[in-house]
Amino acid sequence: MTMPAESAATVRGRRYPADPEWFCDFRTFPVQGLGPEVGVHRRDPSSVLTVDGRYHVWYTRSTGETDGFGTGDPMAKVFPWDWSEIWHATSDDGATWVEQGRALGRGEPGSYDDRSVFTPEVLEHQGWFYLVYQVIRSPYALRSFESIAMAKAPSPDGPWVRSPQPILRPQADGEWAGEEDNRLSVVSQGSFDSHKVHDPILVPFQGRFFLYYKGEQMGEGFSAGGRTTRWGLAIADDIEGPYHRCPANPVTNSGHETCVWRYGDGIAAMLTTDGPERNTIQFAPDGINFEIMAHIANPPVATGPLRLPDHAVAPLDGVRWGLCHDVTASWHYIQGFAADERQKMFYTRGLSPETAESAEADALPAPHEK
Amino acid sequence: MTMPAESAATVRGRRYPADPEWFCDFRTFPVQGLGPEVGVHRRDPSSVLTVDGRYHVWYTRSTGETDGFGTGDPMAKVFPWDWSEIWHATSDDGATWVEQGRALGRGEPGSYDDRSVFTPEVLEHQGWFYLVYQVIRSPYALRSFESIAMAKAPSPDGPWVRSPQPILRPQADGEWAGEEDNRLSVVSQGSFDSHKVHDPILVPFQGRFFLYYKGEQMGEGFSAGGRTTRWGLAIADDIEGPYHRCPANPVTNSGHETCVWRYGDGIAAMLTTDGPERNTIQFAPDGINFEIMAHIANPPVATGPLRLPDHAVAPLDGVRWGLCHDVTASWHYIQGFAADERQKMFYTRGLSPETAESAEADALPAPHEK
Repeated sequence: MTMPAESAATVRGRRYPADPEWFCDFRTFPVQGLGPEVGVHRRDPSSVLTVDGRYHVWYTRSTGETDGFGTGDPMAKVFPWDWSEIWHATSDDGATWVEQGRALGRGEPGSYDDRSVFTPEVLEHQGWFYLVYQVIRSPYALRSFESIAMAKAPSPDGPWVRSPQPILRPQADGEWAGEEDNRLSVVSQGSFDSHKVHDPILVPFQGRFFLYYKGEQMGEGFSAGGRTTRWGLAIADDIEGPYHRCPANPVTNSGHETCVWRYGDGIAAMLTTDGPERNTIQFAPDGINFEIMAHIANPPVATGPLRLPDHAVAPLDGVRWGLCHDVTASWHYIQGFAADERQKMFYTRGLSPETAESAEADALPAPHEK
Repeated sequence: MTMPAESAATVRGRRYPADPEWFCDFRTFPVQGLGPEVGVHRRDPSSVLTVDGRYHVWYTRSTGETDGFGTGDPMAKVFPWDWSEIWHATSDDGATWVEQGRALGRGEPGSYDDRSVFTPEVLEHQGWFYLVYQVIRSPYALRSFESIAMAKAPSPDGPWVRSPQPILRPQADGEWAGEEDNRLSVVSQGSFDSHKVHDPILVPFQGRFFLYYKGEQMGEGFSAGGRTTRWGLAIADDIEGPYHRCPANPVTNSGHETCVWRYGDGIAAMLTTDGPERNTIQFAPDGINFEIMAHIANPPVATGPLRLPDHAVAPLDGVRWGLCHDVTASWHYIQGFAADERQKMFYTRGLSPETAESAEADALPAPHEK
């Protein structure tokens, strides 16, 4: 056997950034007021906004047990995010939250959002507050299509006025096979977002409005990288739309819940759970062409990071801390997360971790620090 | 802005395997007999061998609290793997283990292994059993060099006869800076394995013996991918050596504890914890040039999978189940792990996970099944 002079991994290693500024681990911590509660699901926190020195978050909230699909009862709650509303909470320190009540309920029977409104994200822009979120119309079947809507309010306390129609609908360009309510059974799959558009997140960028979202496909597939979940991008000149899909969609080949933030002149993203590039942090100078910057272990789930007033100066400032959810228990709940850069700090400063003082993870920044 | 027709992620996505046969998740489960015990560390299980219908494992075992470095006492225990011995346990079902006692202790004072013997791996070959493991000579300082040794026995119960010298030593081709016992302070770093050779794992391959190991560098660095830990390969014509380093070293750009298995005509590897390709499963047809086959989430730590009598027929057979450790509690302990392919099973069979029967994870295979 002839021995190569260097291995494929060494050659491939040159593709990765040598600089550790994107590297981090994550930790989670309990928060008061949004934690575990029997009978209530709290999930999918929005980004955390700072308004007049106070933190604000919006999230999916529902009550009661789920019955799943196939019960024969079209009113049965099929998922923890079925029959949901969007609620609002505030905090002075990021650790103790006070639930403020419902921000947005379901629409009137027969409307596009009469079944569930959930997975909110929030943006403050020119004195107005904009919620983007998922909507479902009754009945909720496995083959139901799922859209994205918007509501606006003059203050974080509302009142919220919803868009007359969804601002983005799934492409619906596949073809179901048979009559059974099976979302995996298709004649043709259609676009990557033929079935559902999920997890919207809205970012002002280059004078326009970039709406990132997770796409689910009719007849979703599976590859070496996991479920074939990818993110799309829709762009509008006016914040209220119309939103037009980017022709380069999908803009990722991986990812589950969306998480993006402005960094420098571009857009950073954290991709988790699904796809060949699950658990990576990526960056796109143009917001479209993302490249892997770092691999992460044990990322928080459904992150809603603290939003900075402008773009992040350091790559990880956009995920310094925030809220995320834990869905491993019977009743889903919200907890805190924070980037943990202690390991990197030791090595890059030439400190042996074996003898250096064990650093505390950074405390949460006060509302006015960022 | 001109919109590209497809995104960088879509183009990059074509590099990844489309077939899901490498995809899996992992779960862990408690085992009896090697679980948590106050006062005792059990870690770093070897692969699990099946001998005469019974499972065997070897592992690092030490007792007592650690004092860390810098105490001024050269006898102080600095790590949970300091002052360790290699112990042996057996099981009839993989779930309940009986500790059989010490397989290999430390060498006589003044010998190359008088301080600690640990992180064993085992191979049965032509009626003999071979342990490969790490050794430390006293005193154990941060700048101590760390080598790999071998012991052989005619049966899994011993008696074990150790090699007169280590079979692989670190390259030791860097230069320390200053006199302080700081392993990160160097004038020059030397080779990727200049400081320590760790975690040996021995595989008969193509008529020779491939010894994979983890390399640590003098003045270890940090990159976007984390600690610059990489794996090396040393090859011998005779199982007892001499072992010569592969000129293509390092053969990975990532990884912490080694985990490799024969699959088809090549070598599969699971890389965790460190480096730009942490948490991937890779494959090298020649045992040298590894390519990423799948990304994994929450991999087990320090896996010792069940060894098959020959090479694996399906890619993941080599990590179907085995032992791993948990080092997050005060006293380290050994638990079981198993590959979990339920998620993939649903999607690839066209079953909606929302309505399909919730499958149990596969039971552990009986000793004679594989």
